[in-house]
Amino acid sequence: MRIALLGGTGDIGQGLALRWAYDTDHEILIGSRDPEKARTAAEEYETELDSRGRDRTINGFANEMAADRADVVVLAVPPYHVGDTVDAVAEKLDDETILVSPAVGMKSDGDGMHYHPPGVGSVTELVADRAPDGVAVVGAFHNLAADRLANLELEFDLDVPIVGDDEDAKETVRLLATGIEGLRVVDAGPLANAAEVESLTPLLINVGRYTDDLHDVGIRFI
Amino acid sequence: MRIALLGGTGDIGQGLALRWAYDTDHEILIGSRDPEKARTAAEEYETELDSRGRDRTINGFANEMAADRADVVVLAVPPYHVGDTVDAVAEKLDDETILVSPAVGMKSDGDGMHYHPPGVGSVTELVADRAPDGVAVVGAFHNLAADRLANLELEFDLDVPIVGDDEDAKETVRLLATGIEGLRVVDAGPLANAAEVESLTPLLINVGRYTDDLHDVGIRFI
Repeated sequence: MRIALLGGTGDIGQGLALRWAYDTDHEILIGSRDPEKARTAAEEYETELDSRGRDRTINGFANEMAADRADVVVLAVPPYHVGDTVDAVAEKLDDETILVSPAVGMKSDGDGMHYHPPGVGSVTELVADRAPDGVAVVGAFHNLAADRLANLELEFDLDVPIVGDDEDAKETVRLLATGIEGLRVVDAGPLANAAEVESLTPLLINVGRYTDDLHDVGIRFI
Repeated sequence: MRIALLGGTGDIGQGLALRWAYDTDHEILIGSRDPEKARTAAEEYETELDSRGRDRTINGFANEMAADRADVVVLAVPPYHVGDTVDAVAEKLDDETILVSPAVGMKSDGDGMHYHPPGVGSVTELVADRAPDGVAVVGAFHNLAADRLANLELEFDLDVPIVGDDEDAKETVRLLATGIEGLRVVDAGPLANAAEVESLTPLLINVGRYTDDLHDVGIRFI
């Protein structure tokens, strides 16, 4: 499968790119508003993978071109760029494309991190509102600590809650996610339940800040 | 230590009462608006504990009297009764009392459970607003599935995030919580971070509803 990571030069994009390229044979496309930046990041990821004995080709493109070529498009951009990014690539998406939304709106104050969703209720639902009709949207990967994901030295045993209204698209994303070693997918229901998934992220950050011996915190449901 | 469970006839109150009585030597007081109901529940808990070889005395009282006698007062009442319950017992609390808030405001729709906090931001902060000056408030036990807690057959290995502004009170609640076998406490920061802890509860309920093989879902931070 071809996976485009829009904003694939950022931290969560890097982590997903490295893990998918290392653990699976999916084709990974790095997207950026600046195609040169995308190509540079793609080369860095290739070098990193090569140093671990994994010979992979990763290509970088402008976001539009990456989206055009992909079966699954991951919006690995900051929450305030998500809407614009969907608009920018909208005409490259078709009924076969699955859009994946991992971004979380948060604001920080002296006490910690707080959930700060857009007016529609969640970033994931914002993506669904802005996506062209017929394009399936799945929320996933909101709660993964990017540094932990991007460090291939680290093994983990973490859960990924997903939400979506299209069961086939959810199943595709579930298979993609579980292709990464150590990830298990749990189903949190339809898109309308996205806020409860996204709001876990600031809790993980707060727990990592205030609890000794927990850093880059992830979650297991038991 | 003397622990009063106001609303101790309800499900989370029952679970905490049974676990504390079984696993520790703390004195457990069951509170209810109806003292007769409190006494009946207390006797049922004694019978349950006796059937498992644990001979404990548990007494039931009106909420006010339970609060008056306790070092730690747990507001194990539904979220819409929390404010009134604090008001009802306010004059029985003193600077030595610790108020513990486990309630979560939620609303359910066809899709799932959603976080629905009071205007002040969280039930825990509502308790802090309504509590008399000098009474320390700690948020804890929001995320424990009551059925799992109340079934002494079940062992578990679960995390309890706590929030509070008074570090001594937090430490007392941490020790009380970890007195229950299988509970670990993680620190989620000050009271201002309570919403992120409370909003985990509807996610756990949604994951339990939509994911096969997960029921009465709890959490581990890793």
